[in-house]
Amino acid sequence: MEQLTVQELGRRAKAVSAVLASASPKQKNDALAAIAAALEARTDEIVAANKTDLENAVQNKMSQAMQDRLLLNPARISGIADGVRQLIQLEEVVGKVESGVVRPNGLRIQKTRVPLGVIGIIFESRPNVTVDAATLCMKAGNCVILRGGKEAFSSNVCLTEIMRDAVESAGLPRDIIQLVPDTTRESSNQLMKLSQYLDVLIPRGGAGLINAVAENATVPVIKTGVGNCHVFVDDSADLDMAVNIIDNGKTQRPSVCNAIETVLIHRDIAAEFLPKMKARLDAHNITLHGDDAAKALLGECVIPANEDDWANEYLDYQLAVKIVADIDEAMAHIAQYGTNHSECIVTKSLEHAEKFQRGVDAAAVYVNASTRFTDGGEFGFGAEIGISTQKLHARGPMGLMELTSVKYLINGDGQVR
Amino acid sequence: MEQLTVQELGRRAKAVSAVLASASPKQKNDALAAIAAALEARTDEIVAANKTDLENAVQNKMSQAMQDRLLLNPARISGIADGVRQLIQLEEVVGKVESGVVRPNGLRIQKTRVPLGVIGIIFESRPNVTVDAATLCMKAGNCVILRGGKEAFSSNVCLTEIMRDAVESAGLPRDIIQLVPDTTRESSNQLMKLSQYLDVLIPRGGAGLINAVAENATVPVIKTGVGNCHVFVDDSADLDMAVNIIDNGKTQRPSVCNAIETVLIHRDIAAEFLPKMKARLDAHNITLHGDDAAKALLGECVIPANEDDWANEYLDYQLAVKIVADIDEAMAHIAQYGTNHSECIVTKSLEHAEKFQRGVDAAAVYVNASTRFTDGGEFGFGAEIGISTQKLHARGPMGLMELTSVKYLINGDGQVR
Repeated sequence: MEQLTVQELGRRAKAVSAVLASASPKQKNDALAAIAAALEARTDEIVAANKTDLENAVQNKMSQAMQDRLLLNPARISGIADGVRQLIQLEEVVGKVESGVVRPNGLRIQKTRVPLGVIGIIFESRPNVTVDAATLCMKAGNCVILRGGKEAFSSNVCLTEIMRDAVESAGLPRDIIQLVPDTTRESSNQLMKLSQYLDVLIPRGGAGLINAVAENATVPVIKTGVGNCHVFVDDSADLDMAVNIIDNGKTQRPSVCNAIETVLIHRDIAAEFLPKMKARLDAHNITLHGDDAAKALLGECVIPANEDDWANEYLDYQLAVKIVADIDEAMAHIAQYGTNHSECIVTKSLEHAEKFQRGVDAAAVYVNASTRFTDGGEFGFGAEIGISTQKLHARGPMGLMELTSVKYLINGDGQVR
Repeated sequence: MEQLTVQELGRRAKAVSAVLASASPKQKNDALAAIAAALEARTDEIVAANKTDLENAVQNKMSQAMQDRLLLNPARISGIADGVRQLIQLEEVVGKVESGVVRPNGLRIQKTRVPLGVIGIIFESRPNVTVDAATLCMKAGNCVILRGGKEAFSSNVCLTEIMRDAVESAGLPRDIIQLVPDTTRESSNQLMKLSQYLDVLIPRGGAGLINAVAENATVPVIKTGVGNCHVFVDDSADLDMAVNIIDNGKTQRPSVCNAIETVLIHRDIAAEFLPKMKARLDAHNITLHGDDAAKALLGECVIPANEDDWANEYLDYQLAVKIVADIDEAMAHIAQYGTNHSECIVTKSLEHAEKFQRGVDAAAVYVNASTRFTDGGEFGFGAEIGISTQKLHARGPMGLMELTSVKYLINGDGQVR
């Protein structure tokens, strides 16, 4: 792999971004098809490169769970290729006319979708992100500069070169997809300051990474993915439904950002509800961290919760439990500790449902459904680059549309002011 | 005026932001009406406060043009009040449903408009911005923290207190509008780092201010207003139309961001066009800075243009002129020196019109019309907070809609994944 500077990567991306921005839907889809085919055709290379990463992981005593996230085998590679093929089916967004008016003076103004330009992605261990992110950005007409974690470096180099070869074979410039050729802190910092060439930087990873990027970047950032999500079980809740939603939110995939971390329970139904909830969660060996009231109802099996538990994104088989006086206390707790990702109320009260949805400040606010649905696929976007937890530009699952900007096209016949 | 810290201003804004976010359209409009009435009723106070600023301006030998920008008299105050009343007529944006779907599993997902939250505005001399920005933010449900320039400090304090009194008299918390109580560099820096409380920061002023904010802020920033705008006169252009568009773009109001700064002229029509253009611009005493080819055609009256002229936003009765070989050279020049604001081609060629609109990377790309139309009012938005020249969140004139974010409301009956 060529040892280019981050500055040079930026220069090269910018140099080809106009070509990609004006590429036809067919050209982009041909390149996606070529990438999918190449990933499958060159599976052996990918597996070999991945083996290097896995050997390092063993040597560095990485946890089994982390090793599993790193693994690429033929089935997973095929799954990644299928994901790329699915992008081909998605509707073209570049050039879409959002709105249009004719002004009293005869000016015709169209608001049209254009690519953002050059997108930087800083991500952690999972190598599939390399392909998912690069191809989604490309479908929306954006060049991408990827900066992956050191754990998956060998895999990322291999995957990127395969994509670049495929893109070129399909007639587009290979530099529309680039990987930062090292995993030093310095290259990461340089990427954060590359305002001259980058239009946006999207960090994908844990709270530490996201905050470091938000603090240090001069490039505009979209914060994604930190989810300290809550379920509030109101006094009028259907208790069986609440158990299902909590079970699903906690155990269906605990390591993801839309999993729930704290359950808030109305005190009037706590005595009836808590044992039901515990019985279900025991099947998954969930550790409960409770406040005094919860502990009083459930006994010694509950670890006393402290301030850290309310703020913690466990991403694990652990759950914090708090008994609250009413919906107001629940909403105040969420306002204090939530991360504006996904929040849920289980209730039969129309008034409480509306109050919760209006008053809770989060990307996705649920009534009687699992927070696990906050996902581009589940929302019908086809694919996503991440879940934005900020308010600027995009909020919630970010699909193709969120990877674009707008341009006003104004046509006249000599109008002046 | 109370000497609160920037941190405390942030805390107070955040504390009342939920009240404003859930205020009804009528409550907000009543507050706007109260502000408009109070500005007129308390005109004497405003004029007196403004007198202090004007006296300082004289003492500091501020230019006449700058003094004029600072001046508030009864007619101007009435104009500002009228601007506030016009906001009342604009359609409510908070709560607007952008789109909605029912997913195969029965989940109903609505994408709704919500306020951004707390907006910081850093601006320079003109005191009318204090009212325009605060009321526009308020109409969109946002709290605002204003940090004005030292030249208008006395006026800004007076205007802010009048607005706060009026808001309170209309039943909303006065802290939804706040002014930073000093004009030190330190308070400005603190505002740029107030990520804990601010959702977005919008600098309004010259390139120096905008760049300082973009470099130093940890709060998300929307860059506005730097406009090095071009008109390209193609070989097929209607030359009289081109003269009108250039005259209007340069002379109708030279100090604004959508005024033109450089004219690019196809070499095949340069000999015929340049004298026509010069004859018209001479009436406004426009100084021309030309390349060698332009100088050869127009003679000694043209100052030789250097690299700085191509990059310069004159904001004055000066214009750079360059002869180009073709549309490609014109577009390359714009790509190198433009600021992604407003660009124009005058042409009769459909192919060139489309090529220019597709290929030029700017918020607004014109065919046969003056760049002076890049303005919220001219686009039909009713009012604007500025012209965004970045691609993230908003691009071009930012009206009420651009001062909002979205929230997904998801309703189910127990759905889990």
